[in-house]
Amino acid sequence: MAEKLTKQSKDYPRWYQEVVQRGDLADYAPVKGCMIIKPYGYALWENMQAVLDKMFKDTGHVNAYFPLLIPESFISKEKEHVEGFSPELAVVTHAGGKKLEENYVIRPTSETIIWDTYRKWIQSYRDLPLLINQWANVVRWEMRTRLFLRTTEFLWQEGHTAHATAEEAQMETLRMLDIYRSFAEEYMAVPVLKGLKTEREKFAGAVSTYCIEALMGDGKALQAGTSHNLGQNFAKAFDVTYLSDSGQREFVWATSWGVSTRLVGAIVMAHGDDAGLILPPKLAPIQVVIVPIYRSDDEREKTVGAGDKLAGQLRAAGVRCHIDDRDHLRPGWKFAEWELKGVPIRLEIGPRDVASGEVCMAARHESGKSQHSAESFAANAAELMEIVQKAIYDRALEFRERNTHRPDSWEDFVDCIENKGGFVMAHWDGTDEAEVAIQGKTKATIRCIPLEPDDESGSCILTGNPSRRRVVFARSY
Amino acid sequence: MAEKLTKQSKDYPRWYQEVVQRGDLADYAPVKGCMIIKPYGYALWENMQAVLDKMFKDTGHVNAYFPLLIPESFISKEKEHVEGFSPELAVVTHAGGKKLEENYVIRPTSETIIWDTYRKWIQSYRDLPLLINQWANVVRWEMRTRLFLRTTEFLWQEGHTAHATAEEAQMETLRMLDIYRSFAEEYMAVPVLKGLKTEREKFAGAVSTYCIEALMGDGKALQAGTSHNLGQNFAKAFDVTYLSDSGQREFVWATSWGVSTRLVGAIVMAHGDDAGLILPPKLAPIQVVIVPIYRSDDEREKTVGAGDKLAGQLRAAGVRCHIDDRDHLRPGWKFAEWELKGVPIRLEIGPRDVASGEVCMAARHESGKSQHSAESFAANAAELMEIVQKAIYDRALEFRERNTHRPDSWEDFVDCIENKGGFVMAHWDGTDEAEVAIQGKTKATIRCIPLEPDDESGSCILTGNPSRRRVVFARSY
Repeated sequence: MAEKLTKQSKDYPRWYQEVVQRGDLADYAPVKGCMIIKPYGYALWENMQAVLDKMFKDTGHVNAYFPLLIPESFISKEKEHVEGFSPELAVVTHAGGKKLEENYVIRPTSETIIWDTYRKWIQSYRDLPLLINQWANVVRWEMRTRLFLRTTEFLWQEGHTAHATAEEAQMETLRMLDIYRSFAEEYMAVPVLKGLKTEREKFAGAVSTYCIEALMGDGKALQAGTSHNLGQNFAKAFDVTYLSDSGQREFVWATSWGVSTRLVGAIVMAHGDDAGLILPPKLAPIQVVIVPIYRSDDEREKTVGAGDKLAGQLRAAGVRCHIDDRDHLRPGWKFAEWELKGVPIRLEIGPRDVASGEVCMAARHESGKSQHSAESFAANAAELMEIVQKAIYDRALEFRERNTHRPDSWEDFVDCIENKGGFVMAHWDGTDEAEVAIQGKTKATIRCIPLEPDDESGSCILTGNPSRRRVVFARSY
Repeated sequence: MAEKLTKQSKDYPRWYQEVVQRGDLADYAPVKGCMIIKPYGYALWENMQAVLDKMFKDTGHVNAYFPLLIPESFISKEKEHVEGFSPELAVVTHAGGKKLEENYVIRPTSETIIWDTYRKWIQSYRDLPLLINQWANVVRWEMRTRLFLRTTEFLWQEGHTAHATAEEAQMETLRMLDIYRSFAEEYMAVPVLKGLKTEREKFAGAVSTYCIEALMGDGKALQAGTSHNLGQNFAKAFDVTYLSDSGQREFVWATSWGVSTRLVGAIVMAHGDDAGLILPPKLAPIQVVIVPIYRSDDEREKTVGAGDKLAGQLRAAGVRCHIDDRDHLRPGWKFAEWELKGVPIRLEIGPRDVASGEVCMAARHESGKSQHSAESFAANAAELMEIVQKAIYDRALEFRERNTHRPDSWEDFVDCIENKGGFVMAHWDGTDEAEVAIQGKTKATIRCIPLEPDDESGSCILTGNPSRRRVVFARSY
């Protein structure tokens, strides 16, 4: 490449911005806070969508589509919802050359328009559960934006389910949270903590919000997905009732849950290094790139021919493969480009390799090269993808464990937050006041109260008041 | 069903509205001119998307995503484009609680923001061709709307390609037109005419617009897809040039092409009858529905058991299958519901069928029932889907041929347009004036100048001036 990336250790945010843009994931748009998702980045998102969509359908959910524009009055119907979203709304006041009688807001999330619709769709217990998901764009007018992590417009899926009982809604909330965990860990190769948000951090309109939290390479936390138990809040706001099998009219119980293009940023920051992206094989648009190495037309014909043959075998084995036969670029330039773009495996094929039926392999996540017979590489490529996937996950897990701290004094706590980074497991007395004060002093927030049991009791890191368990503090995106 | 549909012959638009809503394709939204695409309708759209997306990728196109919001000034850069779209724009004037410095419009189509981006992405001939598609929602503030056919917001794909030469751009324009034709005919089972739009009817900003035109069940035409050769219009408006291999700086040549959720309406109106939808098997969310028929728990166990077994065999053969074992509905009610929803094949399994290993089959597109061994049905089901697909297409083609007229006098022409409907192939002198006058007198527009050669010359149906060929007139959606 023409120029090296900024080193992570020198300026992590700048490294991130460079790797996203030069790695061809996304570009800034001429629209405040918006991004253009480039073909390579969009292919990654499409792979993520395909896996998630199948997970949703396998658990009985169906897709539908609700309008982009929401009457301004709808947003106001749920009190906490409107307070949470009002500052972020984009408002359509004119259309078709005229001022509108009622303004529309561009959906920041779709609870209101969906629950207005569910009032018509739900009559009896036979209509429940209603398990609907939507793939859509949403707009939230954010002050400070960053490609993928926080953009004015982003792409996401939002599930909106309706249930006959509180228990069912709670089960659905946790089921979808676990689908997110399994997607993050098994596909993105990013280990996550499942937990409950504090009252202050929960979704505007939810009874309780659960989340998965991931640790990024710079030691900051990233909320990677949320699943909300909405109780009967939206059913009451939009008057959605059903006739139970005992003939009673009852309010419906609700959940909503979503993940977004932010997950692309999570992959970048969980795995990337100074040479660029490192993509997990299960989601990588290109899993194996073949670079033929030649100096003459004759060598070109032989090496590209061998590469094409191998590519055919790999594709037949279900491996996503690309052959880079651009004539105007030197091999070294190509190597750097594919490293920057995070392709898991690079194969080099020179004239001598063709003669011996071999390939020279470099795995993106580790250093070094090794020679392999082309035949055996093709036969084992699918298995190799699993091995690389696991190696990337294990490394991220090891990083998280190394960067999880358990301070018991205020000094240690501050040292962890300010100097060490990572997940800081500490005692908290459960009050809003302590949460606010800790955030004010350290810029650390409570990322979640982990779902994993923790029987250890202790004293709040700030107030010394009794605490029944540790919670996760961190600075975050 | 509780109530029969309005008959097509009595009130076609009302039949359409009822079948779309009661067939669970879509619902009106509480937002002017917008619709809610229900899960069954969205599943149909997803099947259409999957096929089209593969066709695009197989021809070298990649997906990307550009912002929903476009700075108002961008729209004005191409003169004809702004004239065409200004009356339909929805405008965001406020966001984040403040009045914006520059308004944003919600994309009515994305040429402007995409060509603003291409200026950065295209430097040399090596960056061409650039073959990008986007799946997105767009908003056009329409006065009169109708579910799927014309809605304020709709879902679509828009391809935007950049080429080094005029010839390549023209080839791409026609290639994508032919992909649309093949999708309409082979998947939607809707025969279409490929043709060129007149100057008056072409896309705002295009050099030439090609279209596919389909004939609906009421004899009106529907434009089902368009492919535009944009020449250098957008490259000049956004200053997009490339360095040719001979070192010259040249403006880039462009195409754009799109189909939308309107195609769902085309399927409804091309095939539907008084009993409801008739979906082509290749796109139907459910290809085979199994209705077990029972009066006792014992019969239920046997018939549902046999249905489950057959459903498993059908799914293994790649057939999309559903078993309707709802206890609270009578079989006759279920039959009517699945007819309304257009499922190609219905199988009934009663206790006697279980005993003899048979099923009773009814095909949606024809009347009558027939007995089959369950084993042989499962073995031949995939082939049966092909047969039904072809039968539906052949019927639509036969309908179109029966409703294509070739009048040579003004009286005959008016009689065709006003009383017969269908495609009216007539001579036209090629002038805007005659086109406008004919539309004024008959409400018929020139749907297209067919690409198929037509060496017949004659006299304009209105002016009597010389005409080199017939063009297609019709009233249209």
